[in-house]
Amino acid sequence: MQERRVVVKEGAEFFFRNNAGYCIGTGRMGLALQQAYQDQLKLVQEEIGFSHIRGHGLFCDDMAIFHEYEENGVKKVEYNYTYLDMVMDSYQRLGLAPFLELGFMPEKMASGTQTIFYWKGNTTPPKEYTLWTDMVQNLLRHLIRRYGRENVVSWPIEVWNEPNLPGFWENADLEEYCKLFRLTFCAVKEVDQRLRVGGPAICGVRDAEWIRAFLDFCKKEGITPDFITRHHYTTEMPEPVGHYGYTKLTKPEEGFANLKSTRDIIDSYPEFCGMEIHITEFNTSYIPNCPLHDTNENAAYIAHQLSRLGDVNQSWSYWTFGDIFEEHGVPFTPFHGGFGLVANGCIPKPTFWTFAFYKRLQEAGGKCVHKDDDMVICRTADGTYRGIAWNWQNGQEELALKICLPADVARYTLVEKKVDEDCCNPLKVWHDLGQPAYPDAEQIKLLRECARPAVLTRQVTRGEAEAGLGLTLGRYGVTYFTLTKREETADRGYVYERATGR
Amino acid sequence: MQERRVVVKEGAEFFFRNNAGYCIGTGRMGLALQQAYQDQLKLVQEEIGFSHIRGHGLFCDDMAIFHEYEENGVKKVEYNYTYLDMVMDSYQRLGLAPFLELGFMPEKMASGTQTIFYWKGNTTPPKEYTLWTDMVQNLLRHLIRRYGRENVVSWPIEVWNEPNLPGFWENADLEEYCKLFRLTFCAVKEVDQRLRVGGPAICGVRDAEWIRAFLDFCKKEGITPDFITRHHYTTEMPEPVGHYGYTKLTKPEEGFANLKSTRDIIDSYPEFCGMEIHITEFNTSYIPNCPLHDTNENAAYIAHQLSRLGDVNQSWSYWTFGDIFEEHGVPFTPFHGGFGLVANGCIPKPTFWTFAFYKRLQEAGGKCVHKDDDMVICRTADGTYRGIAWNWQNGQEELALKICLPADVARYTLVEKKVDEDCCNPLKVWHDLGQPAYPDAEQIKLLRECARPAVLTRQVTRGEAEAGLGLTLGRYGVTYFTLTKREETADRGYVYERATGR
Amino acid sequence: MQERRVVVKEGAEFFFRNNAGYCIGTGRMGLALQQAYQDQLKLVQEEIGFSHIRGHGLFCDDMAIFHEYEENGVKKVEYNYTYLDMVMDSYQRLGLAPFLELGFMPEKMASGTQTIFYWKGNTTPPKEYTLWTDMVQNLLRHLIRRYGRENVVSWPIEVWNEPNLPGFWENADLEEYCKLFRLTFCAVKEVDQRLRVGGPAICGVRDAEWIRAFLDFCKKEGITPDFITRHHYTTEMPEPVGHYGYTKLTKPEEGFANLKSTRDIIDSYPEFCGMEIHITEFNTSYIPNCPLHDTNENAAYIAHQLSRLGDVNQSWSYWTFGDIFEEHGVPFTPFHGGFGLVANGCIPKPTFWTFAFYKRLQEAGGKCVHKDDDMVICRTADGTYRGIAWNWQNGQEELALKICLPADVARYTLVEKKVDEDCCNPLKVWHDLGQPAYPDAEQIKLLRECARPAVLTRQVTRGEAEAGLGLTLGRYGVTYFTLTKREETADRGYVYERATGR
Amino acid sequence: MQERRVVVKEGAEFFFRNNAGYCIGTGRMGLALQQAYQDQLKLVQEEIGFSHIRGHGLFCDDMAIFHEYEENGVKKVEYNYTYLDMVMDSYQRLGLAPFLELGFMPEKMASGTQTIFYWKGNTTPPKEYTLWTDMVQNLLRHLIRRYGRENVVSWPIEVWNEPNLPGFWENADLEEYCKLFRLTFCAVKEVDQRLRVGGPAICGVRDAEWIRAFLDFCKKEGITPDFITRHHYTTEMPEPVGHYGYTKLTKPEEGFANLKSTRDIIDSYPEFCGMEIHITEFNTSYIPNCPLHDTNENAAYIAHQLSRLGDVNQSWSYWTFGDIFEEHGVPFTPFHGGFGLVANGCIPKPTFWTFAFYKRLQEAGGKCVHKDDDMVICRTADGTYRGIAWNWQNGQEELALKICLPADVARYTLVEKKVDEDCCNPLKVWHDLGQPAYPDAEQIKLLRECARPAVLTRQVTRGEAEAGLGLTLGRYGVTYFTLTKREETADRGYVYERATGR
Repeated sequence: MQERRVVVKEGAEFFFRNNAGYCIGTGRMGLALQQAYQDQLKLVQEEIGFSHIRGHGLFCDDMAIFHEYEENGVKKVEYNYTYLDMVMDSYQRLGLAPFLELGFMPEKMASGTQTIFYWKGNTTPPKEYTLWTDMVQNLLRHLIRRYGRENVVSWPIEVWNEPNLPGFWENADLEEYCKLFRLTFCAVKEVDQRLRVGGPAICGVRDAEWIRAFLDFCKKEGITPDFITRHHYTTEMPEPVGHYGYTKLTKPEEGFANLKSTRDIIDSYPEFCGMEIHITEFNTSYIPNCPLHDTNENAAYIAHQLSRLGDVNQSWSYWTFGDIFEEHGVPFTPFHGGFGLVANGCIPKPTFWTFAFYKRLQEAGGKCVHKDDDMVICRTADGTYRGIAWNWQNGQEELALKICLPADVARYTLVEKKVDEDCCNPLKVWHDLGQPAYPDAEQIKLLRECARPAVLTRQVTRGEAEAGLGLTLGRYGVTYFTLTKREETADRGYVYERATGR
Repeated sequence: MQERRVVVKEGAEFFFRNNAGYCIGTGRMGLALQQAYQDQLKLVQEEIGFSHIRGHGLFCDDMAIFHEYEENGVKKVEYNYTYLDMVMDSYQRLGLAPFLELGFMPEKMASGTQTIFYWKGNTTPPKEYTLWTDMVQNLLRHLIRRYGRENVVSWPIEVWNEPNLPGFWENADLEEYCKLFRLTFCAVKEVDQRLRVGGPAICGVRDAEWIRAFLDFCKKEGITPDFITRHHYTTEMPEPVGHYGYTKLTKPEEGFANLKSTRDIIDSYPEFCGMEIHITEFNTSYIPNCPLHDTNENAAYIAHQLSRLGDVNQSWSYWTFGDIFEEHGVPFTPFHGGFGLVANGCIPKPTFWTFAFYKRLQEAGGKCVHKDDDMVICRTADGTYRGIAWNWQNGQEELALKICLPADVARYTLVEKKVDEDCCNPLKVWHDLGQPAYPDAEQIKLLRECARPAVLTRQVTRGEAEAGLGLTLGRYGVTYFTLTKREETADRGYVYERATGR
Repeated sequence: MQERRVVVKEGAEFFFRNNAGYCIGTGRMGLALQQAYQDQLKLVQEEIGFSHIRGHGLFCDDMAIFHEYEENGVKKVEYNYTYLDMVMDSYQRLGLAPFLELGFMPEKMASGTQTIFYWKGNTTPPKEYTLWTDMVQNLLRHLIRRYGRENVVSWPIEVWNEPNLPGFWENADLEEYCKLFRLTFCAVKEVDQRLRVGGPAICGVRDAEWIRAFLDFCKKEGITPDFITRHHYTTEMPEPVGHYGYTKLTKPEEGFANLKSTRDIIDSYPEFCGMEIHITEFNTSYIPNCPLHDTNENAAYIAHQLSRLGDVNQSWSYWTFGDIFEEHGVPFTPFHGGFGLVANGCIPKPTFWTFAFYKRLQEAGGKCVHKDDDMVICRTADGTYRGIAWNWQNGQEELALKICLPADVARYTLVEKKVDEDCCNPLKVWHDLGQPAYPDAEQIKLLRECARPAVLTRQVTRGEAEAGLGLTLGRYGVTYFTLTKREETADRGYVYERATGR
Repeated sequence: MQERRVVVKEGAEFFFRNNAGYCIGTGRMGLALQQAYQDQLKLVQEEIGFSHIRGHGLFCDDMAIFHEYEENGVKKVEYNYTYLDMVMDSYQRLGLAPFLELGFMPEKMASGTQTIFYWKGNTTPPKEYTLWTDMVQNLLRHLIRRYGRENVVSWPIEVWNEPNLPGFWENADLEEYCKLFRLTFCAVKEVDQRLRVGGPAICGVRDAEWIRAFLDFCKKEGITPDFITRHHYTTEMPEPVGHYGYTKLTKPEEGFANLKSTRDIIDSYPEFCGMEIHITEFNTSYIPNCPLHDTNENAAYIAHQLSRLGDVNQSWSYWTFGDIFEEHGVPFTPFHGGFGLVANGCIPKPTFWTFAFYKRLQEAGGKCVHKDDDMVICRTADGTYRGIAWNWQNGQEELALKICLPADVARYTLVEKKVDEDCCNPLKVWHDLGQPAYPDAEQIKLLRECARPAVLTRQVTRGEAEAGLGLTLGRYGVTYFTLTKREETADRGYVYERATGR
């Protein structure tokens, strides 16, 4: 193993947009009624704390919003917000605002029968568009009444999900999507001009073509979306085996280049140049049964992603916070490769901590004094350094860093929170326990206990900081560190060395 | 470093009375009114779970039980159980029964003015013994009314505390103590014959003399105490410096020999042979400002103690569960060397985990298949091994063990929970942070996070178990381990190695 | 208004089997995953405390238990207990054991496509009976592994639900049901002989015919069910209007006679004479959108029922504890006439308190000294009287009672907890508020506050008790009262009359 | 009984400063360490919600702040903030800022030995004033470090308590107090000019004389206090009997006149005219063992007070929130006439609700449209009326009001929350139960249940509102009412009258 030496120059500044706490993905909205979902989300909010949440299924039948009935031979419509209120109230309690995705189609409103997923979301256009726009407006007015106009106008609204895939939007019909977008955009703005509407929520298939066509359409129609949305996944096609799919990560730079291309297309339109891009879904693999999601490798790879996604985007929403999900049905074991930061049983996966670390960095603020493919380091006005380092490149067993930092005082405290395959790896513990499909209470407790970062502290002299602060990361390790000026106060008579024989 | 090899023979059985969860010490009863006290006790009960609790100060003035007043020129007595009920209710809620220590003297009932501690417990005999016995009976009847006769008769009762020290009992007057004991014993038995009364609660000064004199007195008076109580501390005289006292641990065998001598004395009386001995206080140092208490060294030493205290005793009560204490006043910092398993701020100290580990072993049951000065190992009927090992001898940096175990199956899961100076040492973290007297919320969170055992798991083959299961302990390490038969169930398509590249 | 005078004779004893706390009904098992369901159930368990819970849908597709797949051209089966464990764990936490109802049919196992309810429970026989019996056995073995054999053998098992209705069992095919019962019975007993199996879970349509045919079948096959189950509803056919159904209560005696007829049929078989009957569902109306359920009238009628259902039955399970239900879809308002004791928003309905009162009476024990159509009164060994009175007959505005009771002491304390249209009527408050479909947080708080019994106390002299303790009940009132011997203790100097000017 | 008719004119406006939620009194600061104290305060904050808290004992020895020791023959000082932080942290958690009262004297700093209360607060000047000012500054700097400068500068600071009484300040030495004030004032301002300092915290003995002398002194010294503080009690001298004191309420106008006289004195100084007056203590009786405090009479009298105390004062702090208090020792029963809004056992007393009602009124805002000796009524911009009425005058059994209100719409909802001797009177329930000194868990539950306002709702037509909304108050009743515009929404098919037969 060779050491990597990094020198942070006095006054250095790097571009680093850290918006890690902005938005998180979720399984379909109807699942938000579940207790296990809420328990997992509560854990996420306590330790990380996102401000927005986005997922599918707002208008799916399990939310029971849209109803038709006949009275005296006349078809009428009624809306039911009983479950919607339960869900939105629960988000409020946890400090979350929705990033509203408008979709999919209520069965009774649909023009066709095509559905997606185990939970059968209907993915066809409405049989009549006024039914759709009436429902959207009625829903927004209900939300405004209940949660306050000033709150609701700050909730971003996205029209549909991945219409560029035929499974999500019948025939991936671009023209039809543009119609849906235009009518929806206008209907929403009628409720309140300040409501912010975006699209086209595409994933990476024919994406450039879609973005261009969408912007051309907007330009032609004189519509200015409030933001553009797209998705971002970074694995190859998975190979299915039994309940699972196995896959490989793609090179990060490929994904970043793809993101950049979207930025460039938008910026090529004078009307839209600089428009916000929100990545409303991202993860490594795009299947909910990919064992990779549960690994330390995933955590390290995502750590790298989070250092770069702000390069050209406004926000990026990890898909998803937890493993109450159901797109492929109900999982057979807690470690089934779900998208979640949290495994069923309320067990944080390694990637959970990647987000916790970036959120701490975001809260602390300061300026970025170093960023490369292994780490990001910030410094606040009080002279504290905070950083995140990861060991993803080439799956190397160990990454040894020497980070040379400008130092102001004689002595610092270094705090490291470490996540790697040895010290914070619940998947391995579960495997060692025999991969129990239904772990008992004691096993669940153990899995939670083993899923916390190791905490290390030590004192660092100015000399060491300047000559190179040594950090070592284990395989697929992610480390959050703070280097804080240390002032020792000794209570009268207290001598640590006497207490400890050290 | 040299490995120590231990061979557990098929069918081996060792004497090991593990009653670690029986009783825990507490600061004076009045402190049980405090919220921080209750928070610490709740943590202790959740993670360890004792069944009894014992401390001083039941009759001290802050409990406000005894009152005298004049009416029409006549002196009268009244009792107030407002605070007593609050305390006892709180114990009930936490699943604890009191090990009642009767003492000290209400100021208004005292014959003298001598007090002990910052909180001024009066340590003189009653001015009239009937005032005392009336109060004791009244209190017991109140408890019976409130908590049920069948409950209260199971609560052990101890008469006074350390009367062999002049600070705790004026002049360490043995004859006066015997009088107090006799009158109290008879008064209690009058309330209910089944109530169990013991003494003389001595510590290690002239202890043999006191025990003999006490038993002679009982024999002469025809009294059979229900049990004998004594204390057990294992450090030399401390050297005071500022707010602190520094000391050295004595050799464990000295202490065990002293305990054995009490056993022998009792057994030399045919009337009393085999009578239960309860150690109603023990710890390393006997001062509440001894930095040693907060260290990993303390945890490892106590681990050894807990393997041996059952040799001749029925129970042993660590002094104390938490650091809301006040005998020497209010501490200036969280790590002030208090007796507690928990530091202020609800931070478990290393010794906390020693008890948690022994309690788990006690709950699991089974028989002891090995015990020596470094470890104890039990085996339950299902073939699971559970053990505790510690590295206390000579302060060696590392202890490497090879434990050869009879094995039944091809594959086991080894779970280790490790506490040592590197992985679970909040004192060091606090020191590295600059020893803040008043840590802020973020520091407290960090101190709690760093104060949990590291969890390690791995698979062990029959061959390895038989050839010698390897365990390595860091400096002053204490490890709890379980070796459980492993059956792997693989969900359809799940291949751990593919998931992890391992 | 005329007073009704009741004389309780010294030594009087009435038959009164009070098993109110035995079992409660629930919406389909999949709903137990929901947070609102759990919140409501928690409230029920805290204030009432049932020991068992029974509902439909154990094998319905949202529980995701049964799966078929093909491997190398061969059809195979796998089971998934992820959700089942979540549900059962939640019941355990709340102190509940399941009264297992085996049904309905997993879609993949079904012989037909007939479904029932909004949530589409398949109500056809299995395509192959071995698939069914294998699944039942596999499930029971899973439960035994997870919850312990000794626990699980105490959980009653009922085969299917209301097979005498064609909606619940295709064609209401009696012969097919007998086959299902026989095969299931034998399969369960193969797992453990001690498991208790019953049926036929019929409701009141051709019930006598079904019971006889079922018993004839059992006799012929040499099967002895462990108990017989049936349902009990007491309203006429509802008239549907919009989302609701309106109906009238039937005379109680009609229902009691029908229950008696089942008893008589069973007892006419020497083999089955005295066999336990469990009413596994009862309520007033059998539709989940009957506004009657939310009223005080319902509470008073059920109070009467609870005094009599023990006459010939072992237990009776109110259908249901809460309003997370969905058989007719998602309700549009909190007061939609759901079956629940608790309205959505965690608002206890009047009938909630009827159960709370009967459960208190059950816990206190003692013997029944009076029972008639207006009240039931018990007396415990300490001379305390506890009773429940209700005002249901004829919808009279007020019921004035004078209850003459044998008295032992000079003075008693009377505590009344009153529920009637004036003092505990959340439906009226909701109506006065304008019937908000989506009450806001402040309205929900108010609805909870108004939904608690009024508490009244007064002192009663021996003379008054003997001459007739006066109790007045408002319209559809239900009152729980205790009459306890009063001993006054006055603290030194305390004079209540001086304090209050009374 | 005669009805009182009140006519509210369109456009009417009355002066009504409602600052009920500003500050609440507390037992000495050391008691804030107790769990029962915190439980009671939590209840108060949940249901009422004060923003500040004020009490004695910041510098008393149980807080352990000030310490002297000798080192090498030199006297040195050290401070200990362990307990202070616990207390302040607990206030923060409950949303409270301290209204800091600087007092009493640490024993080691005191010039004399005079103490006050069971808990022995030393009430003599410092032996050296620099010890005092150093301590004050050190404490403030500590608070600023821990809680943030911007927070701490908003915390009002009051110098000492009731120095005009010789028990609270040796010899009630005015000159010495002025010295203390001046030195403290200057020391505080040195820490931060924005810190706000007031005094002289006098109670009603020679108060005019003290106020004048204090202002003369300030004028002479060129000091401008940030506010003036005084106390306000409204009963005659109590008659002591056993543990209790009985007394009579004085006429309210006497007290108001006395408050006005303070206002007038201050305003007569051009330098100080309009200076804020804070009543830092008020209640009916000034003894902590006055049974009156627990009554409905107290609640009704205080309701009147709260309508008037804003006439000339900025704030008024009820003495105290709870009954963990100890000035006269530990109470023998829960209803011992303590100052608290909450009785021990977490039982709200009637006066608790008076504050809850005024706080709701304060939160809702709007303008006062009527105020007299029986009620206060406010109207918000949306046309909602909110008011509080009380029945205190002459102890009349019933007060019937007809309140004529300008009405905008056809139909309103009236919500009444009622507290009176019949419906919300835990003292009477406790008395009926036999005045148990140590109520058991079931009795405590009952006492809590009976201590909540009755909730009544009804619909009111425009005609009734204009002709006179009828409200009836029972003896010593306090009613909070809201009159809100009612819009009925009927879900499809829902007919309340059919549901209820009404």
